[in-house]
Amino acid sequence: MLPYFTQLYGNASSVHTVGQEARYALDGARERVARVLNCRNREIVFTSGGTESDNAAIQGAATALEETGRHVITASTEHHAVLHACQVLENRGWEVTYLPVDDFGQVDPQQVYNAITNETTVVSVMYANNEIGTINPIADISAAVKTRAAEFNRTIVMHTDAVQAAGYLDLDVRKLGGHKFYGPKGVGVLFIRRGVPFLPLITGGGQERERRSGTENVAGIVGLAVALELADSERDAIGARCLALRDRIIAEISRRIPNCVLNGHPTERLPNNVNFSFAGVEGEPVLLGLDLQGIAASSGSACSSGSLEPSHVLLALGQTADVARGSLRITLGKDNNDSQVDRLMDVLVGLVDDLRALPTLSGTAND
Amino acid sequence: MLPYFTQLYGNASSVHTVGQEARYALDGARERVARVLNCRNREIVFTSGGTESDNAAIQGAATALEETGRHVITASTEHHAVLHACQVLENRGWEVTYLPVDDFGQVDPQQVYNAITNETTVVSVMYANNEIGTINPIADISAAVKTRAAEFNRTIVMHTDAVQAAGYLDLDVRKLGGHKFYGPKGVGVLFIRRGVPFLPLITGGGQERERRSGTENVAGIVGLAVALELADSERDAIGARCLALRDRIIAEISRRIPNCVLNGHPTERLPNNVNFSFAGVEGEPVLLGLDLQGIAASSGSACSSGSLEPSHVLLALGQTADVARGSLRITLGKDNNDSQVDRLMDVLVGLVDDLRALPTLSGTAND
Repeated sequence: MLPYFTQLYGNASSVHTVGQEARYALDGARERVARVLNCRNREIVFTSGGTESDNAAIQGAATALEETGRHVITASTEHHAVLHACQVLENRGWEVTYLPVDDFGQVDPQQVYNAITNETTVVSVMYANNEIGTINPIADISAAVKTRAAEFNRTIVMHTDAVQAAGYLDLDVRKLGGHKFYGPKGVGVLFIRRGVPFLPLITGGGQERERRSGTENVAGIVGLAVALELADSERDAIGARCLALRDRIIAEISRRIPNCVLNGHPTERLPNNVNFSFAGVEGEPVLLGLDLQGIAASSGSACSSGSLEPSHVLLALGQTADVARGSLRITLGKDNNDSQVDRLMDVLVGLVDDLRALPTLSGTAND
Repeated sequence: MLPYFTQLYGNASSVHTVGQEARYALDGARERVARVLNCRNREIVFTSGGTESDNAAIQGAATALEETGRHVITASTEHHAVLHACQVLENRGWEVTYLPVDDFGQVDPQQVYNAITNETTVVSVMYANNEIGTINPIADISAAVKTRAAEFNRTIVMHTDAVQAAGYLDLDVRKLGGHKFYGPKGVGVLFIRRGVPFLPLITGGGQERERRSGTENVAGIVGLAVALELADSERDAIGARCLALRDRIIAEISRRIPNCVLNGHPTERLPNNVNFSFAGVEGEPVLLGLDLQGIAASSGSACSSGSLEPSHVLLALGQTADVARGSLRITLGKDNNDSQVDRLMDVLVGLVDDLRALPTLSGTAND
C-alpha cells in the first residue's frame, strides 16, 4: 500500500499521468478481487467497508425496485448493518419480514420461500454469522428465492453479507448463487451481479460506474485486493489449522467447564469461531480477565462489545437476556497455535472458577 | 499512519487492550481536528470522504426534519456530491431550489434569504468552488439563513461543503457561521453542530455516536488529523506563497495568451486556484500536452475530468457548452515554485499557439 500514499497519490479520475497510475492500480486490484469472487471486473464496487456495502446493497436494490413492490425479507440474526438498513426502509414505508432462526442460528430455506410475496423485492441472509459463526445454507436459500421469483414472475434480488466468510469460506459467487481477511480498515467490496437493479447510496462524481461516488481510496483498495488474494490462496491451510484449534477449544471447554453452552451450530460454523455461554457468569469480567493475560476476545459482536445490551443474535436463538449478556466469543486467526490454546484454556478455566466463587453482589449474576 | 496498519490494528469498539489502543488513537485524532475547527470533539464525525460527508449532511438533516417541511436550497455550482444528494431528495418528493450565481460564481445572500419558505429545512452552499476557486460569503449567507429561520420560527440547517477550503481558508466554525490538505484518501470529516437534527446515511454498529456506522478507519483518521493540523499550521505561509504564484500565472496568461477568460472571481478565490478558458481551444488536448511535459492539470473537476460533458459550474456562469468544454484548471500546492511557473507558462503559451494553428477538423473547435 505504501507507494500509493507517498508517490502514486493521483486521483484515479484525473486525465494526467499521475491520475492514470492510480487508475492502473485500481484496475489491477479490481481484477484480483474479481478472480477470487469468480465474477466480472465490472461487477465489483469498492466501498468504505462492510457496513456501507450492506447498507448500499439493501437500500440500493429496494429503492431501484420500489415501483414493483416494497417488501424485504431478512433474518433476526443479521449484522446491524443489515438490520438497520431494513429499518431505514421500514421508516420509509417498506414492509420487512424478520425470519426466525433455529436453535443453532440457521435460516430455513423453506421459510424464505414461504415468506416471499408478490411484493417482495429483496432477500438478505448472511453467509456466516459474525458472533456465533453459524453458516447459512446460502445456495439453498438462493435457489428458493430463484424458484419463487420465477413462480411470481418478478425480479427479487438476493443479497448475502459475506464479511465473515472472506478468507474462510468459498467466495465463488457462481457457487453461492469483507474485511476479516487481514485487509486494511476503511475499504470494502460490494459484488453486484450484472443486470441487478441498483441505486447508489453515495452519489456525486459517478465513480465505480455510477454505483459509488467519491475519490477512490487507492491504497486501501490495493491493500484489500492483495489481502483477499492472499487469504483466498491460503484459505484451505489456514482453515484446516483454525478448525483443529476451534474443535480443540470447544472440546476442552465442554469437558473442563461445567454448565456451559456452545452457541451456534456444532459443525456448520466458521472454522475460526468459538462462542460459549457460562451459567452465572457475565461476559464483561471474563473479557477483562482474559485481556489482563494478553488474550483478546469479545462478547457479542466486536462493534458493540462496549455496549451492555444483550446480543440480538443470542436472543434470536431463544436465550434469556441474562444468558445472552454472558457470552464469550473467541475468534481464531492465521497466527494462532496450540500452545496459545493451552494458555487460553488454563486462564479461562481459572477465571470462570474464580468468578463463580465470588459472592453475588447483585441478583443478576448467580440467580 | 504506519503503526495503525501493522501493530495497533485493533477494532476501536473492542473492550480489550488492542481495541483500546485504537480507541485512544481515534480520540486523539478527534481532538486535533476539533481544535482546527474550534468545535467540540463530539461534533466531529469521521466519514469515508467529502462525497459521503456531503451526502450525509444534506440527506441526514433533510430526513431528520422531514415532518417540518421538504424544501432544500442549494446553488447551481455545487459539487455533484451536493447536487446529487439533492436530486435523491427530489426523487423522494422534496422540492429543491437551485440558486443561480453571478458572473464570478458567487451566491448572493439576499437571494438565499428570499428563497427560504416556511417549508425550508436545509440550505447548502459551498465555501469555495472546486473548479473555479470562487469563495462564497458564507458568514453572510449563514446570517441570512439565521434571520429568516427566526422570522419563520423554524429550524433550518445551514450546510457548507468546505472540502476545497481546508488548508487554505479559516475553518473555525464559529467564524463561519475536506481532503485537499495532503491527507489520505478514503477518509473525511463531517462537522455537525451540537443539537443539529441528523439521521445517519450509513447505519449499523452505531459508531461515531450513532451518526456513522462501520469499523473506524483508524490509520486513515490519524493521517487525516495530522495532515489537517499541519495544513492549518502552515496555512498562512503556504497560502501566501500560492497566492503570489496564482496571481503571477493569472497576470502572465492574460498578458501572453490572447482571447482568454479567467473563470471565477478575480480576488475572492482560493489562493491555489487558476481557471481559464481559451477561445477556440478544447480542454482535452491542452491537458494532454501539459501532461507530456510532466505538468498535471485538470479540466473541470478532477472527478469528472475523464468525461466529455461540459462543466456544470461554467455553464452556471453563463458560458456556452463549447467554451465550458475548453477550460483549464491549474491547482497549486505547497511544493510549487516560481521556476515551475516559468516552465508552465512557456509550455502553455506554445501549446495554445500550436493548437490554434491546427487546421480545424470538425466544426467544433474553431467556429
